[in-house]
Amino acid sequence: MSLSAIKTVGVIGTGVIGSSWIALFLSKGLRVIVTDPNPEAPEKLSKFLADVWPSLERNGPERLEFKRKLFARLDQRTPADTVICSSSSGIPSSQFISECQRHPERILIGHPFNPPHVVPLVEVVPHPGTEPKHVMKAMEFYRSLGREPVLVAEECPGFVGNRLQGALLCEAYSLVSRGVISASDLDLVMTSALGLRWALTGPLTTNSLGAGGSFHALLKHLGPAMVEWREDMDKHRFNFKANEVASLVERVEKLEETLDVRDLQRKRDAALIELLKMKAQAGFH
Amino acid sequence: MSLSAIKTVGVIGTGVIGSSWIALFLSKGLRVIVTDPNPEAPEKLSKFLADVWPSLERNGPERLEFKRKLFARLDQRTPADTVICSSSSGIPSSQFISECQRHPERILIGHPFNPPHVVPLVEVVPHPGTEPKHVMKAMEFYRSLGREPVLVAEECPGFVGNRLQGALLCEAYSLVSRGVISASDLDLVMTSALGLRWALTGPLTTNSLGAGGSFHALLKHLGPAMVEWREDMDKHRFNFKANEVASLVERVEKLEETLDVRDLQRKRDAALIELLKMKAQAGFH
Repeated sequence: MSLSAIKTVGVIGTGVIGSSWIALFLSKGLRVIVTDPNPEAPEKLSKFLADVWPSLERNGPERLEFKRKLFARLDQRTPADTVICSSSSGIPSSQFISECQRHPERILIGHPFNPPHVVPLVEVVPHPGTEPKHVMKAMEFYRSLGREPVLVAEECPGFVGNRLQGALLCEAYSLVSRGVISASDLDLVMTSALGLRWALTGPLTTNSLGAGGSFHALLKHLGPAMVEWREDMDKHRFNFKANEVASLVERVEKLEETLDVRDLQRKRDAALIELLKMKAQAGFH
Repeated sequence: MSLSAIKTVGVIGTGVIGSSWIALFLSKGLRVIVTDPNPEAPEKLSKFLADVWPSLERNGPERLEFKRKLFARLDQRTPADTVICSSSSGIPSSQFISECQRHPERILIGHPFNPPHVVPLVEVVPHPGTEPKHVMKAMEFYRSLGREPVLVAEECPGFVGNRLQGALLCEAYSLVSRGVISASDLDLVMTSALGLRWALTGPLTTNSLGAGGSFHALLKHLGPAMVEWREDMDKHRFNFKANEVASLVERVEKLEETLDVRDLQRKRDAALIELLKMKAQAGFH
């Protein structure tokens, strides 16, 4: 079933991300070796695998010292050509390889998006010493699972997805906290326009389509306006101050009152799968 | 077919946006009165209506002086209770009502997203003197056409959709121009993760789902990281300088070489319609 040479995968930690990877690996016929110090982990994992739905707890040990020691041990005890991937979104691998004395060149980040057994993207982020052949091996492995790996050439804070998301969210927070638009209408702007298009064509392709196939023309046309919008956005920047946060949270809580979270999550997940099917049928990848 | 009391609509200008509105109005059984000074407009419009696909030219007269005179005449020559909407994304209505001597309180912006006969969002932006009853009338009219109007309470530059889009695009331009990620991989980050989710749940709801239904908890957890990402984004800000633009355009052109624009536009439009159907069936609005 798998096109990759990798037939066995080790997963360390069975939090939200770990469990979801495990579900995906198993579904592709791989052998999975799991470890988690929590004595309740086996039962919890079985439950999760039965549900095929991640619990909502945060993945535990994102502490740097813990990672440093863990990866030193992994490096010592695994075959030299085993690729070691961390799903961390916060800590680039160059920060936790300092004690790896054998082969730090096969360590890298493979950062998935929630829930990983549904959402195809994986950000592959090597550290400056990661060898290209291990990067290629990891990307090929993710592709063999039907994932869409992208190469992030630099360990910038937040990598790419979280930066794009963060840039948009900061502006959304400002608009809602200032009462320019309600929280539910802000979400509608995305789900009834921007998000619909971005599910099918990315921001650069969408730009290009907006000017008959010339991104350059679009940029000439739209650039000056974007600079003007940004000046106004800077003026009204959301700075996470207590009063801004209070106003924002109060307005979003009005939206949350209308949500049935468990039901919505289930519906969202099912619809994500439908959407991916529809895209494949329509010739989008 | 229409639930609104409005049965006749006047459309001024048959550019990209105007023609697309006309197609939508006609499809909902409305009577449409069209005017355009261009002698070729009738033929072009017929062609467009046959294609139901917007040409790629930019909508013409976004000049302020032109709008000011046009709206003064419209105000003078239409019944007092006729709502007058401009589709402008760039010029808020308070800038062109200064010569309206009868009823400027029924003038407002109804800003659609390309292509308007498919994408449901309409940003309704009153000027400070627009009367709430006319705002309500416009919103009800858009809803009767199956659109999703949102109320933008303040005439901020770019309104809401373009600001959100602009914030994200500036960061995308920076990452691609600096070579952190290729143009095609940048687009994949959107189409294989962020955009998939945002097509179904907006940014605030997605935040809330990410923390089991508590936006407040998410903000506490993610806020400090977002501030850190933003500091780095500020440091590497895309400033539309000639060398930055050159590097960006060169990289996006590599992506454009792989696109068949006409085919992609057709496919995208068809898939947008499928996506909207799927969402309706799955209980998303």
